[in-house]
Amino acid sequence: MSVNSKLYEGKAKILYTTDNPEILLADFKDDATAFNAQKRGSIVGKGIINCSISSHLFQHLEAQGIKTHYIDSPAANQMRVKAVKIVPVEVVVRNIAAGSLCQQTGLPLGTVLKQPLVEFYYKNDELGDPLLTRDRLQLMELATEEQVATITNLALQINKYLQGFWQQCGITLVDFKLEFGLDSQYEVILADEISPDTCRLWDATVDDPNLRVMDKDRFRRDLGNVENAYQEVLQRVLKAVESNK
Amino acid sequence: MSVNSKLYEGKAKILYTTDNPEILLADFKDDATAFNAQKRGSIVGKGIINCSISSHLFQHLEAQGIKTHYIDSPAANQMRVKAVKIVPVEVVVRNIAAGSLCQQTGLPLGTVLKQPLVEFYYKNDELGDPLLTRDRLQLMELATEEQVATITNLALQINKYLQGFWQQCGITLVDFKLEFGLDSQYEVILADEISPDTCRLWDATVDDPNLRVMDKDRFRRDLGNVENAYQEVLQRVLKAVESNK
Repeated sequence: MSVNSKLYEGKAKILYTTDNPEILLADFKDDATAFNAQKRGSIVGKGIINCSISSHLFQHLEAQGIKTHYIDSPAANQMRVKAVKIVPVEVVVRNIAAGSLCQQTGLPLGTVLKQPLVEFYYKNDELGDPLLTRDRLQLMELATEEQVATITNLALQINKYLQGFWQQCGITLVDFKLEFGLDSQYEVILADEISPDTCRLWDATVDDPNLRVMDKDRFRRDLGNVENAYQEVLQRVLKAVESNK
Repeated sequence: MSVNSKLYEGKAKILYTTDNPEILLADFKDDATAFNAQKRGSIVGKGIINCSISSHLFQHLEAQGIKTHYIDSPAANQMRVKAVKIVPVEVVVRNIAAGSLCQQTGLPLGTVLKQPLVEFYYKNDELGDPLLTRDRLQLMELATEEQVATITNLALQINKYLQGFWQQCGITLVDFKLEFGLDSQYEVILADEISPDTCRLWDATVDDPNLRVMDKDRFRRDLGNVENAYQEVLQRVLKAVESNK
């Protein structure tokens, strides 16, 4: 596979074209950003860790019948993926109240939701990724009603599978962000990544609200030990993958 | 009617108890606030103007079969209203894109919506009155599903009647905020006020995007001639009421 030109550079990944127009190469970076890129830094080893965790989780989901953009991982921080047209919404699934949900509703951090909440945010840095109602999704023509229904259904299925997987790792899946894309047959498939950058992950055996955090909140909130937490998540993922073989 | 103690002081009105526990007295103030009370000022005559406009609009809606909290207006800036338990959501009906809808979606100011948009915001100054999805409304138990359906339906009916009324005044109803309350029989009725403080009103005969503004945006955006605009709205309302007699 010959790598061609840079197609797109995001905050955490660079996408390159390849000699096959239906395949892209994703290069995972160590760069870390938060608060709509107002806070910038680097987490040493993050590119390799997130690429590895995402690869394993995509393969786990594929085994459950969820279609993803994952093809393979030709290098430790690189993933070959199907070229898709990204639906410009961030899909957030929440099991436990944290982050902006707490800030915007007054719900206390850690409130266990009676049922998972699937929320849509407009993927637009300039506008600060605002929350979308279903009506705004339609008004802005970001996705058809059918696509929204498909995505909601997929997000809930993925949540169920991921909750099970993270539980095996001794980790509570608090919430996470997904992105979906349309493949060459206009089918909605899972894209982007699934990693401590995009999930809130709490060590299930720790009660202390700062010590339990194993995700990008350590970077966002300056909790320290960011690299260690990411490494620990990867080790637990590898152990779970091994035991599932 | 003897006025008793101050029950509640809001940004634009003071509510007093009366000798009848089912009746409150609303005293409309000249105080003006914007951007979640970060901007404060005064619009001379606003209390009387908004009380008068609201009184006429509530009576107009009652005549169309919409139940409101309005009883009568014992003084120019005072309204007797039915005591209700306010549903803690601000209901915004939008016909044309303006304000936060433009900021959060990127839709250009003045975009005519294909159908009216009914939105809910959490009435909570501390949290900055955040936008609510239907799921968050349920999660926060701010209203039952039935109440949300009733309110949405009432809001759309009220929009239809108000659009007609403001058209008679040569004014385009861009968007407006409503509040609803539960009366002593737990019926959802219209409360609060309907005025240039709570509606975006554009002079239908003026194209200039600043000159056409006849509402609180003149205060928010320092457009000048705030008092004149409010007075002009009142005069047109009185003329329309007179011609409808």
